[in-house]
Amino acid sequence: MLQSIPGGITAAQGYQAAGIKAGIKKSGKEDLALIYSIVPAAAAAVFTTNAMAAAPVIVSKRAAAQGSVSAIIVNAGCANACTGEQGLVDAQAMAHMTAELLNVPEQAVLVASTGIIGVPLPMGKVADGIRKVATQLSANGNEATKKAIMTTDTFPKESAYAFTLGGKTVHIGGIAKGSGMIHPNMATMLGFITTDADVSPAVLQQALKQAVDTSFHMISVDGDTSTNDMVAVLANGLAGNPRIDSNKDAGYAELAAALTAVCTDLAKLIARDGEGATKFLEINVSGAVSFAEAKQAAMTIAKSPLVKTAFFGEDPNWGRIVCAAGYAGVSVDPEKVTLSIGNVQIVSGGLAVPGIEESMLKPIMAEHDISMHIDLGVGDASATVWTCDLSYGYVKINGEYHT
Amino acid sequence: MLQSIPGGITAAQGYQAAGIKAGIKKSGKEDLALIYSIVPAAAAAVFTTNAMAAAPVIVSKRAAAQGSVSAIIVNAGCANACTGEQGLVDAQAMAHMTAELLNVPEQAVLVASTGIIGVPLPMGKVADGIRKVATQLSANGNEATKKAIMTTDTFPKESAYAFTLGGKTVHIGGIAKGSGMIHPNMATMLGFITTDADVSPAVLQQALKQAVDTSFHMISVDGDTSTNDMVAVLANGLAGNPRIDSNKDAGYAELAAALTAVCTDLAKLIARDGEGATKFLEINVSGAVSFAEAKQAAMTIAKSPLVKTAFFGEDPNWGRIVCAAGYAGVSVDPEKVTLSIGNVQIVSGGLAVPGIEESMLKPIMAEHDISMHIDLGVGDASATVWTCDLSYGYVKINGEYHT
Repeated sequence: MLQSIPGGITAAQGYQAAGIKAGIKKSGKEDLALIYSIVPAAAAAVFTTNAMAAAPVIVSKRAAAQGSVSAIIVNAGCANACTGEQGLVDAQAMAHMTAELLNVPEQAVLVASTGIIGVPLPMGKVADGIRKVATQLSANGNEATKKAIMTTDTFPKESAYAFTLGGKTVHIGGIAKGSGMIHPNMATMLGFITTDADVSPAVLQQALKQAVDTSFHMISVDGDTSTNDMVAVLANGLAGNPRIDSNKDAGYAELAAALTAVCTDLAKLIARDGEGATKFLEINVSGAVSFAEAKQAAMTIAKSPLVKTAFFGEDPNWGRIVCAAGYAGVSVDPEKVTLSIGNVQIVSGGLAVPGIEESMLKPIMAEHDISMHIDLGVGDASATVWTCDLSYGYVKINGEYHT
Repeated sequence: MLQSIPGGITAAQGYQAAGIKAGIKKSGKEDLALIYSIVPAAAAAVFTTNAMAAAPVIVSKRAAAQGSVSAIIVNAGCANACTGEQGLVDAQAMAHMTAELLNVPEQAVLVASTGIIGVPLPMGKVADGIRKVATQLSANGNEATKKAIMTTDTFPKESAYAFTLGGKTVHIGGIAKGSGMIHPNMATMLGFITTDADVSPAVLQQALKQAVDTSFHMISVDGDTSTNDMVAVLANGLAGNPRIDSNKDAGYAELAAALTAVCTDLAKLIARDGEGATKFLEINVSGAVSFAEAKQAAMTIAKSPLVKTAFFGEDPNWGRIVCAAGYAGVSVDPEKVTLSIGNVQIVSGGLAVPGIEESMLKPIMAEHDISMHIDLGVGDASATVWTCDLSYGYVKINGEYHT
């Protein structure tokens, strides 16, 4: 049984964190964060598939691959992407400096960056910042840390739960930043999760992949996949539960469920805080021939500018939703399609339900949180995706602020 | 040698057209068009791949498949999509009435509709309109006809050329409507082309497919593929050129080039008139391993809301362009990527070109028409795509007008 708890990235035993102002962001806000496990932790991570993967992604991939990690150093304000050899040198230097200060191996440090791309890191400020942030590590550091990874996020994002494994209380918590732009450049989704569960790196990777597939991979703000996306989880074993070495072991299902719950909370918070968002949209597709097709249909609807602007305008324009499902490239029976918005069914058998007036949908469209359900009529698989609307605010954030 | 000529859809010999106000559009503007060849014409057409294909698409597919067509009846204001059995009956009735009035076979009439979806056609108005429009057919009907197929288009779209085949002057011309919304619902791309060339239907279909692949298939306004998209070409043979029965015949290359020129003109006009557009963008990708990958990279850039809003904001935010190429799912060498906007190269070898200041790009970004060129550094294939920016106007058109 999962119990929601406070504490975010430092909710679990043995984790410290800090966030400081290092002067990387032009705004002068918090922009450097450090997350530390007092004992080496099993690590798992997933990374962007963008071919232009940023330098910190390359460095962190190597570190995560060896399975034991002690710290994550994160800067906002500069993505260190499209920066060539110098970018790699700088990302490695961030790991090296952090490792020396914490007295851990350099390959036990993950590095993440978010912010403007194509510009080198201001390494003087970064180095000073790393020295400073390392002195401020604290089990109460969640507040500053979750803020220091933000870019255009309008609120910090955290989630944590406690649950029981083999009679021991296990904690898991995390923080994330959303797919927003920092002035003036491109964005990134970052998620960091810590737990005191005892689990092997391989099993943790398996649980993370499973969790991400139904959470972070199920949100879309604008369909752009960043050069710097990363979700990492550390597990330091201090809860003392019977170690989980296989997905057949007792406790695997519980741990995977808890990790999925944290990832889902964080992912939904990111969609809710999409740039310029005035609506939070849940799109559930059923009746598909496979999960992949259900997801593809839901994602196609979620990415459609016509659908997104209709919700911004509180216009129950169901034709745009059905049309998007039609061009998603998945199996669909046009004569069996159904669609509901909120609890009102407006399409049945591919046709408008007689007697449903648009006025009946007005109160639903006026809500901030709106769910829709579409059945493709060809199978038993389903998927749920979260997104936001497309507003003047999105255009303003991404178009009006010049470099 | 192609020579640009006036006349649009009636530029070629033996074609008449008319456009009238039938009362289908709430605005009261022209909304019913008829295009007629005085002798049966070879026909070719391409249709939407949307699984929710509208009733007129189904009817026109059957008609086009038999290869000989005499007329195209088109209404705006109602898409006759997601209208089930009644929709099919109505679309067939449009063909039937038109055929009777023109004394041609019912299967020689193509039917096209654009406008609100999920609502049945007002068949009383449509029937009255068909009787009226048939009386107004004229070789000077291009002006009214090109307007009657518009929805939220801000200007009518036409193109025509003359060229020589076997000593005979051949004419080809067409009209199109853009990917805009009619108040309040979803949009469609329609293109109609007429020529007096003598060519077999099979060869005409081949030439059309080739032309569409590098024109209508190379534009994107918002990535939404409508239920009603259709491009049709009629060839009535009145030019008296040596008949083209094979793509090996003399004249095939010239005809295909002329058809491609008309399609490219119309496609670019559609992108230029994208909803809310303040910029016309040409995106050329080279150095790809195949045309398909070059097109995919260019289309991914064209569809990126981050790229589109940056151009709206006149922000030379090259990171967004390179990032979009990176997540396009095509082969790319991050260390060889180059990017130019206008005539200024800003990325070389994946890195910002030293000495290029953003101020140098300001005059280029301030233009209405902007071209960019990106080289992926892995092959010899290239592709060019046309699109527009994403502005407040797009959100307004698609979000603010309620049903």
